[in-house]
Amino acid sequence: MKRKLAAEFFGTFWLVFGGCGAAVFSAGVPNLGIGLLGVALAFGLSVLTMVYAVGHISGGHFNPAVSCGLVAGGRFPAKDLLPYIIAQCLGALAAAGCLYLILNGAGAFSREGAGAFASNFYGEAVYNGRAFSLGAAFLAEFLLTAFFIFVIMGATDKYANGKFAGIAIGLTLTLIHLICIPITNTSVNPARATSQAIFVGGLALHQLWLFWVAPILGGVTGGLIYNYLFQENEVEVA
Amino acid sequence: MKRKLAAEFFGTFWLVFGGCGAAVFSAGVPNLGIGLLGVALAFGLSVLTMVYAVGHISGGHFNPAVSCGLVAGGRFPAKDLLPYIIAQCLGALAAAGCLYLILNGAGAFSREGAGAFASNFYGEAVYNGRAFSLGAAFLAEFLLTAFFIFVIMGATDKYANGKFAGIAIGLTLTLIHLICIPITNTSVNPARATSQAIFVGGLALHQLWLFWVAPILGGVTGGLIYNYLFQENEVEVA
Amino acid sequence: MKRKLAAEFFGTFWLVFGGCGAAVFSAGVPNLGIGLLGVALAFGLSVLTMVYAVGHISGGHFNPAVSCGLVAGGRFPAKDLLPYIIAQCLGALAAAGCLYLILNGAGAFSREGAGAFASNFYGEAVYNGRAFSLGAAFLAEFLLTAFFIFVIMGATDKYANGKFAGIAIGLTLTLIHLICIPITNTSVNPARATSQAIFVGGLALHQLWLFWVAPILGGVTGGLIYNYLFQENEVEVA
Amino acid sequence: MKRKLAAEFFGTFWLVFGGCGAAVFSAGVPNLGIGLLGVALAFGLSVLTMVYAVGHISGGHFNPAVSCGLVAGGRFPAKDLLPYIIAQCLGALAAAGCLYLILNGAGAFSREGAGAFASNFYGEAVYNGRAFSLGAAFLAEFLLTAFFIFVIMGATDKYANGKFAGIAIGLTLTLIHLICIPITNTSVNPARATSQAIFVGGLALHQLWLFWVAPILGGVTGGLIYNYLFQENEVEVA
Repeated sequence: MKRKLAAEFFGTFWLVFGGCGAAVFSAGVPNLGIGLLGVALAFGLSVLTMVYAVGHISGGHFNPAVSCGLVAGGRFPAKDLLPYIIAQCLGALAAAGCLYLILNGAGAFSREGAGAFASNFYGEAVYNGRAFSLGAAFLAEFLLTAFFIFVIMGATDKYANGKFAGIAIGLTLTLIHLICIPITNTSVNPARATSQAIFVGGLALHQLWLFWVAPILGGVTGGLIYNYLFQENEVEVA
Repeated sequence: MKRKLAAEFFGTFWLVFGGCGAAVFSAGVPNLGIGLLGVALAFGLSVLTMVYAVGHISGGHFNPAVSCGLVAGGRFPAKDLLPYIIAQCLGALAAAGCLYLILNGAGAFSREGAGAFASNFYGEAVYNGRAFSLGAAFLAEFLLTAFFIFVIMGATDKYANGKFAGIAIGLTLTLIHLICIPITNTSVNPARATSQAIFVGGLALHQLWLFWVAPILGGVTGGLIYNYLFQENEVEVA
Repeated sequence: MKRKLAAEFFGTFWLVFGGCGAAVFSAGVPNLGIGLLGVALAFGLSVLTMVYAVGHISGGHFNPAVSCGLVAGGRFPAKDLLPYIIAQCLGALAAAGCLYLILNGAGAFSREGAGAFASNFYGEAVYNGRAFSLGAAFLAEFLLTAFFIFVIMGATDKYANGKFAGIAIGLTLTLIHLICIPITNTSVNPARATSQAIFVGGLALHQLWLFWVAPILGGVTGGLIYNYLFQENEVEVA
Repeated sequence: MKRKLAAEFFGTFWLVFGGCGAAVFSAGVPNLGIGLLGVALAFGLSVLTMVYAVGHISGGHFNPAVSCGLVAGGRFPAKDLLPYIIAQCLGALAAAGCLYLILNGAGAFSREGAGAFASNFYGEAVYNGRAFSLGAAFLAEFLLTAFFIFVIMGATDKYANGKFAGIAIGLTLTLIHLICIPITNTSVNPARATSQAIFVGGLALHQLWLFWVAPILGGVTGGLIYNYLFQENEVEVA
């Protein structure tokens, strides 16, 4: 178990350091910046790479909503949920701390503006001339996390082409970010939302509840739906 | 069969929610937007990820033109065609409805302009200072769908390296979008064209016929050509 | 053999229609265009997808320089070289014809400017404020084709992880385009250079010789070097 | 051993020619340039492609910090370290020489400005209006190389899904570049830093020490941590 928690710690560190780091350092460089496409790729690659690196140890969740969804889907024991979530949050926090240190080395840390330090937002925050209501943000985070867990359940199904699950799961996270960054800066991961909100404080901390509730509800729904629809798969010949 | 239709419903939902969602929310964000490259990636990844998630259940078509092409190529029974197409269209419509709800949460739904709400277009619609004639649009949609089904037939041939088919098929859809978005906003998928046209109405609905006829003719042609050329493959030793 | 030539015809059609098509239709769309990155991706994906689709039939060359390099490397019989090259050139020409028809459907075909209709260039042609000399263009095309065949030889070596060859080879072509588009618009493929030069005429046709000589010399060199260095591999236990 | 050193020479040549070449020729093309995202992709693809091409010969390091890290992790014999590093540096230098020749063919070689000729930098160099301190640059290079070796160790662990290691390792290098180009132009590879610094001279040469010390310390740390945490893995049943 200690090894599994270490794997989740390092994996979630990599997700936040990679995904949020790409957003913070490289997205907005004038003319050459990687933009939202680069950030979406960074989040996906952080998961893709760590699934192949430590997926054989911990299963490669790196996300409390994924762990909850897999409990609902009958793929992960509920008793391991709390330690996994704690390891994930600690990994995310450590990564945010390192990002803070490096950014401060250029005197460039800032709490101002929607999405500062790659934090999540909704409603009151205006981004790109649009401000998505609480309801729209909730629906987006809920649906995307539900499909995220749906894909994870399917890609790791024993009748599926399981060796490719790391690619499918990582690139699903990229796709999710391609859709949702302008809506909420994309969480679908309470650990990632928490680490950034703690450093930014203020509105980001105030809105943090949504980025726990919507992804976890979505993850549980995705796990239940896959299970309900395709459970009988388990007893058929593929 | 119920399980197969559920898989097609969710898969086509994901294709429209992912591909059209990326176009609607993220393509045009000033300075940071994902552009047509990001949209092309989103469409491809939606298929890539769902093929690995539910391909082992339904075959992973998510597209009436693909189902028709596979009937022509002898890989899919004609009697399942209608239920598949209905499930695909319902999934696409549900996704468009969710996109509409979220976009309305920012008061940003609009029917104006070529390609509004990621709808398809030709001829009268001017995009990027160019307006492609009906003939050019038809040729592009026909050829690209024909090659799409050709690649699907080849990548899932029993002598091919079939475990990689999800990657090949998804990235073919990305490539198709890299070519064709400026021409028609890229359909090659009647379900995806229909869901967006219903919400936009007007010209998009008026032009919808082309995005059923050209892709289905193309798909059937692609299936027949592959079959005619490489059928004897079936009886040789690879 | 007829089936192999058909596979090479359709594969090279796809390479030119996909790669040059992305360049011609989508690269320069204001604000949203896919740029050189999207074009590089399109060329790579055209090969990646067709290797998985028809690689089991013809070997998936789609390029006279690849066929020549594989002859030099001892992987392809010299007697099949000419028919392969003819099929490749016919496929490329057919694709260029379709691109011409579609582009003309928007009245947008043009012969003006370096790289018009995705043609290759060097020296006299100024692109991005730079004009690379004949020597620089030759060196770039020579080196990149040599490494292209080197990677192909390695990735399909019987001791290599051969099922991934399609990914490695396709993405090598993407990498090559990431480097070389500003230098020569990237050929490394005489069939692709020829089809575009024939439609553009003038300087493009005049400079075409280089895009046969440098890639074929490079391909042969790459095949010979891999063979010389790693041939003894064949008799060792991996 | 001669064959292994040849593989490392050509692999590191490809890494520098591909990654730095993309930066030098294509990143900054007005309107169409590949930007930092394209450069990040180029570095990653250079490694991904060469791992599948010659990974079965030399292990596919192409980087002194990787070789050092794998010694620390118990995966590579210390006695081979020096010849590997020499082959890597020679390959990098040869590639930089070819880049210099081609760039000079357009009269476009320049030593001016932070990151000229894709050289690495920190502190005094201002890039994108930010200048990262020595400490921040060191931390970034250290952490990223540590995670790079961590992923390599994990993805090639005998209980991991090892055939995908080339994809995981290459895309990890892409992710690293998505984060770190604005900080140091991203080294994590002393051979790549050295080849560019030698041609640029001046400040780049003066700052070169950091791009040996931080990556090698990071690589060794990553190898030790993976080994310490997951070593017992070796004696369990997966």
